[in-house]
Amino acid sequence: MEQRLLEQFGARVRDARIAKALSQEQLGSLADLDRTYVSGVERGKRNVSLVNIAKLAKALDLQMSLLLDFEVADD
Amino acid sequence: MEQRLLEQFGARVRDARIAKALSQEQLGSLADLDRTYVSGVERGKRNVSLVNIAKLAKALDLQMSLLLDFEVADD
Repeated sequence: MEQRLLEQFGARVRDARIAKALSQEQLGSLADLDRTYVSGVERGKRNVSLVNIAKLAKALDLQMSLLLDFEVADD
Repeated sequence: MEQRLLEQFGARVRDARIAKALSQEQLGSLADLDRTYVSGVERGKRNVSLVNIAKLAKALDLQMSLLLDFEVADD
């Protein structure tokens, strides 16, 4: 369940970033996070903390809840 | 911003737990988390990870997004 969760969250961040025509570098700078961290999140490699979820949501000008409104697919 | 965020999330978890008439011990057991961890989350002392947010939401039978649908009050 956990890996699917991280991948689904990563895909949600990636979709929102692309919809805003931001690069990973730009999103990282807006969110005060390193570009490589953003890349890791989007690839489902990071178990993101609540503070970083809020930073990403704020940088994407989205409600945190919108980044998490998906059903976690079972493995 | 960050401390307020953790406190608001903690209050949201606490309210949901009480609404389900669960003790911290019971929520911890349902979520496969230690009772002291649940206590720390509710007191705003834990920067909860995405995986643990999902565990708490599942244990509370709530959508993750519902645990995060609040505006983060500025400090």
